This record gives sequence, structure tokens and C-alpha cells, in this order.
Amino acid sequence: MKVEPRTLPGFMELLPSKQIQFNVMVDKIRKSYEKFGFLPLDTPIIEMSDVLLAKAGGETEKQIYRFNKGENDLALRFDLTVPLAKYVCEYYNDLTFPFKRYQIGKVYRGERPQKGRYREFYQCDIDIIGDENLSIINDAEMPAVIYSTIKELGFDNFTIKINNRKILNGFFEELLLKNESIEIMRIIDKLDKIGENKVIECLEDLGIESDKISKIMSFIKINGSVDEMLAELEKLKITNELFNQGLSELSEVINYVKLVIPESYFKIDLTIARGLDYYTGTVYETFLNDYRELGSICSGGRYDNLADFYTDKKLPGVGISIGLTRLFSKLSEMNLIQEEKKSISKVLVVSMSEKLDTALKVCSIFRDNNINSDVYLENKKIKAKFKYADKLQIPYVAVIGEEEEKNETVSLKNMETGEQQELTIEEAIKILTE
Amino acid sequence: MKVEPRTLPGFMELLPSKQIQFNVMVDKIRKSYEKFGFLPLDTPIIEMSDVLLAKAGGETEKQIYRFNKGENDLALRFDLTVPLAKYVCEYYNDLTFPFKRYQIGKVYRGERPQKGRYREFYQCDIDIIGDENLSIINDAEMPAVIYSTIKELGFDNFTIKINNRKILNGFFEELLLKNESIEIMRIIDKLDKIGENKVIECLEDLGIESDKISKIMSFIKINGSVDEMLAELEKLKITNELFNQGLSELSEVINYVKLVIPESYFKIDLTIARGLDYYTGTVYETFLNDYRELGSICSGGRYDNLADFYTDKKLPGVGISIGLTRLFSKLSEMNLIQEEKKSISKVLVVSMSEKLDTALKVCSIFRDNNINSDVYLENKKIKAKFKYADKLQIPYVAVIGEEEEKNETVSLKNMETGEQQELTIEEAIKILTE
Repeated sequence: MKVEPRTLPGFMELLPSKQIQFNVMVDKIRKSYEKFGFLPLDTPIIEMSDVLLAKAGGETEKQIYRFNKGENDLALRFDLTVPLAKYVCEYYNDLTFPFKRYQIGKVYRGERPQKGRYREFYQCDIDIIGDENLSIINDAEMPAVIYSTIKELGFDNFTIKINNRKILNGFFEELLLKNESIEIMRIIDKLDKIGENKVIECLEDLGIESDKISKIMSFIKINGSVDEMLAELEKLKITNELFNQGLSELSEVINYVKLVIPESYFKIDLTIARGLDYYTGTVYETFLNDYRELGSICSGGRYDNLADFYTDKKLPGVGISIGLTRLFSKLSEMNLIQEEKKSISKVLVVSMSEKLDTALKVCSIFRDNNINSDVYLENKKIKAKFKYADKLQIPYVAVIGEEEEKNETVSLKNMETGEQQELTIEEAIKILTE
Repeated sequence: MKVEPRTLPGFMELLPSKQIQFNVMVDKIRKSYEKFGFLPLDTPIIEMSDVLLAKAGGETEKQIYRFNKGENDLALRFDLTVPLAKYVCEYYNDLTFPFKRYQIGKVYRGERPQKGRYREFYQCDIDIIGDENLSIINDAEMPAVIYSTIKELGFDNFTIKINNRKILNGFFEELLLKNESIEIMRIIDKLDKIGENKVIECLEDLGIESDKISKIMSFIKINGSVDEMLAELEKLKITNELFNQGLSELSEVINYVKLVIPESYFKIDLTIARGLDYYTGTVYETFLNDYRELGSICSGGRYDNLADFYTDKKLPGVGISIGLTRLFSKLSEMNLIQEEKKSISKVLVVSMSEKLDTALKVCSIFRDNNINSDVYLENKKIKAKFKYADKLQIPYVAVIGEEEEKNETVSLKNMETGEQQELTIEEAIKILTE
């Protein structure tokens, strides 16, 4: 009786050519995060349930993979933020603050399987954690990292949308809608998806008076360049303290962002609120302008307290996250993946005959020269050997026949152009390392 | 009520400076595996229990993390070989054979926690899988990869021990000890650990007659260069077919290995058997000669059938594995980790004053030049800024004071030598990219 080999729904598993592309994206994100000085972190996938769920609740808790092993109540991490909070508290005395870390790893959510939803997916996070305080200027570093990372991934037409939740909360307080503010934020956050009329309808359903709805609508429709918008917000002459604190933070962040990324790549958007209550100040979302249907591909924000469920220490932070599995799967579907790297090997060494010692030796010399090289060792017809290179999209085949053996050369075939030339090993190495 | 932040025993979690070293090792292993043309693979950590446990049993099954989610009986992978078997069968029609893949990932075994044992650990595997057949020459590629990888990790004094289980099985058949052969292999495999007398004792306990024990002992003590040993084995004039098949395979493998790695790095060792029944031909173990107490740091072998529990297709293969978490932890304990990379950032930009715009700009220019750069943004005394660089072992600090601001320069301090010089941004970039 054989068992049927199968993979669970909601778990991404790629063919090698796709895996190469996925890894290129991971490498680029990692490179970009490291360029900004973030330190690597790798935490366990399994944690004690009480540690992992110290703050969670509702939907998150239902989705969690939780189980007992021996006497331990365990769970799989569902994001990289709770493990970071745990880590910072656990190793507080050994860390240097501000603590800048990146983590790229898999997280688990047992969602109902549906298209585009994953139960195992990669998150690529960066966070800067302060000890008691964290300068607002750190909030200006995030758009800089986003800019560098999305550029690195090969996109040029994108917008980083920036807002500050204190402005929203302050504005709603001013309208005496403090209690409704979370609900209102959830609604206006959807403006882009559901349109203006639907937003008004939802606000009406919430029982908000029509003059206030008008004020909210004209507020979130404030538009223009960052300077124009900051001026417009000043002009409202709102006295609410929270509002003005948010406005001053936003101005400062924008001024520093201007120094490091071109103004065409970011704007203020007063509808950006982020779903999570977690965020307390600056918030970010990033959109590919030609593919708005992807939603935000990189989001995050500022929070007052990373770990109040573990510690009395105040640990403010700011961070962003890329949900890479979903992003890759969507980009792949839309044929938007940069195909700059199609194969691992640069060259396949093949022998015309059954004799393989020269082929092995030549391949070994290529490898010693840091050229990723494969050698075909099976006893097959020459056609099969070329087919292998073709299927793996290996750009060059180095053929060794009687002539080449005698001349101590290889015939190097460019698989794209079909061009083939007899070369010394040194000449071949030169072409292969170009 | 605060929850105590803590990590499960048996789960490795590193401080950033150690994590940097760990990642250097992962990167080197990956680079080496890719140099040999192995394709990347990433499979889910969670699989259906029936799929994962199709072949397992005994100890493995007891150690497994297994749980239900909804109606699914799930388990965490305990190695990377079963997922490979699943993958090859599941995507058989889309793969190109011989299928060469590497996988570097975490696996899970709920062992009793003890020093040096991990419940979550990285395995770094490569395998070459044939469709129906796989040339024996592939077995010669493995020592070449091991050689390249261990060298890359910074070790020079190591020995790759090679054997062929057919030689052992054939020899025991010849002695009419076929039924005892697995047990005998387990015992002689321990020669190095328990010594000759203890091996003899164990063989006696197994009920083996003393003349046969003598023959076994003189057999496994055959020693010398690879050529001498092959000659000695020939001289035994054993007629057993399996023995001679093994000897011919071993000769061929050794001849090809000689072509690609220096003879001082490998030898034949007739006591190497590998615990797993899984292996059917060539087997490998690798020892650091100065640190024998580490045990084998890279092992593997040839198997006739990757996936007979999933398919009737014959899928022979050969592979090796590095247990990286254990290896790293041991090397770290023994202070044997190469400390070539101590920090992520090459430079920390600091401002002498509270004014940060020039610091941000300079840092941004460094980053645009692909220099990993950090910038200190907190409002602290200059001493605290240098302390941050010091603790993170960042090699350079670029100081911007009034003078530098005016001259459009930075004062670049080499943190190791203490040397400091005022440089233009271009000059600083030159030094930082050296």
C-alpha cells in the first residue's frame, strides 16, 4: 500500500525555476534591509502558547496552530512581532538600543483555505526598538527602506503613503467622535476599495450626524503635494492637542523623508489608518501604481509599546513588513517577476563519449573559479544532455569531444544564440565569469 | 499580570553578533551547494501525518510533533529527506532528472532536552535523484562538495571517510553472518568511540564465533592509502558477488574523487557504516582531525530507492547532510567560528549636534553606494553614539560636526586603530568599499 504524496492546501511549494525567482526576491530584500544596518534575527517557529498568545485574542487565536507535546502547551508563531517582543524582553540586557533587527521567516495561520490566502507564509520584517524613547526621525527611515527595497525588487512606479494616526484620532476627538474613532478609521481605510458613497453609507450606519460626515469626507479628501497637504491641515486651525502633535510629527517625518527619497515616491494620505490598534503614530502603506489591485505590498507604523504584556519597560518602536508569499504568488500570476536569474548553474559540462574524467576535471576547474557549474554524468545520448541544459535554462554548455580532449579545450555553446566556439579553459572561464 | 517571556529548551536563539556568524555559515554552505549546480527547494514545515510518517517508525515516530487542526492530522517535518521524497513524487512530471536539489531548513524532533541536542535545528542537505538509474560517478561528486564546503567554512585539516555498505554486507554474507549484518555494522561503526576490546565484547555478546570475530577485526583494521586498501581488499579473493560489486563501485568512486580533490583529504574506512538501513552503497562521514570529539560533521550516502513508500518508480539517489545547529553550537563553544564578519553595518554616521539632516543625507549617499550604513538618530551625548558603534562592532564611524558640515566632509574614524581623518564623501566611500 502506497501513501499518496501530497502537500497541504494553503502551503506554497514551488518548482525549482520559481524557487530560484523567489530566492532572488528574498536575497534582494535581505540585502536592502542590511544596507540600512538592520541586524539579523531568527527565532523559533514553536513557542509556549502563553508566551505567544499573551496579547492575542479573537481571530488570531482561532487561527493559531496550537498543540500539546508532553506537558507543554505549544503554538506556532503567527507573526514575527510577538517573537520580537519576547526576544527583546528576554535578552534586554544583552541588546544595544535602539535595537534594529530584520527577520525573514515563515509564520502560520490556520485560515480557511482560499485563493491567495496562505497558511504558511513568509514575512519580511524590520523594526527599530527604542529603550524608553525613540526619536521620531526613525519614522523617516522606514520610507527610505521601502523605497530602496521596492526599487531593488525592480519596480519604479510606486507610492509610499504616509499618515499619522494621531491626526485622525485628534480630528475625531475634535468632532466629539472619540468612541467611534476606531470604527471610523476602519471605514475610511476602505475608501479606495468601496468608494465614497459606500463610505458615507457606512458612516451613516454608525449613527454619525450628516454634518460630521461632511466634515470627515472633506477632511479625508484633502489632497495635493505633501507641502500643500501639511498647509491645508494647518489651515484647519484645529485646537485638539493630539491632532497637533500628530501634525507636527508628520511634518517632521516628511521633512526628513524629503532628504532621502524623491518626492514623486511618497505622499500623505489621510485615509491610511492600518487595521491594527497596535499603531499609535506614523503609518505607512505602499502601492504599485500600475497594480493597485495588489493592495499595499509593504506596510507598517509606529507603536508606543512593543511588549507591555511582558514588561513594564517602555519599548516604543517603528517597523514595516512585506508579506512575501502572497506578493510573490500574485506577481508570479501577473507575470511581473523579474526573470534576471533563470538557473543556478552558469554552465553544464558534457562529454561526447562515455569517458567522463576530463569533463569532471574541467567542471572542477570552473567551480574553483567560482562559476556555478553542473556536469552531466549519466550514460545518455548527447541530445539528452543538451535537453537537460535546456530544461534547466543553463545558459552555456561546455562540450568535450575527442578534438577538445586532444587540444585541451572545450567547445562552449551559448544556449540562447546557438553560437559555439572552441576555447581554451582560460578563455571559457573568462566568458563564464563575465 | 505580565507573562514571562521565555524560549523553549532545545530551541536555539542567538544574540545578533552570533546570528551574524551563523548566517555567514549558512551563506557559505548555500554558495558551495550552488557552485555544484544544486537547485534550491523549500518545502512546508507542516505536512499530513500519513505522508510524513509513511516510512517512519520507532524512535522517529515518538519524537514527532504531531497534532490535529480541524479535521487534519498534521506533523512537523523531522528531516528534509521525506519532504524531498514527497516532492519528487508529487512533481515528478515537472522535474528534470537527475534532479539535484539542496535544501537548508529547520526540522523538528521532540527529543528529551539535553546538552547539545536540539528540538529545532537546521539541516543543510543536498541530494541527486535519478529516474530509474543514477550513475555511480555521482557518488564521487559528494566528496567534492564536502571538500569545497568544509574548506569554505574555514577548515583545512579534515578527512572525508568513504566506504561502501555492499563491501560490508558482502563480507558478512561470506562469513555466513547475513542475518547479523545490521547489528555488526552498528557495533563496528562505534569502533572509534568504544575501542577494539569493547567491539570484540559486543560481537561476542551477539553470539558470533571467535574465528569469525578475528576475521571481522582484521578486516576492519585494514588500513593505508586508498590504493593500498583497494589492493588489500582485492587480495582477500572474496567470491561473494555483493562484496565484489561494492569493491568495484568503491574503486570507481575513488578514482573519480582523486581527479577533483587532493588525496590527503579522503580515505577509505571500513568501519564507516552509517546507522540508517536506508543506505545501500557508498557512505560518507567527515571529521575535523583536530576535533574528533565533534563526530562526523557531514555525512550521507547512496540509496536505491528514495520513495518506495509513495511510488513504484525506482528513484535511486545519493546525498549528504550537515546538521548546522549542532555544528554551530559546538564550534561556537570551542571558539572555532571564523569571525571574519562581526557587524552588518560598515559605518555608523553620527552628528556632533542635534541637527541630523546632513547625517541622514550622508548615510543615504553611503547606502546608494551599496555600503551597509547605520545612522544614530537619538538625542544622546556623543559618547553614547560611539558606544553604540563599539557594541555593535561597526568598524567605522563617520562624524559630522560644524567643520565637516561647512567643508562638506566627514571625519572617518577607524574604530579598530582609533585613526581619524577628515575626508570628502567620495574619499570616505572609497575607504568604506575597500
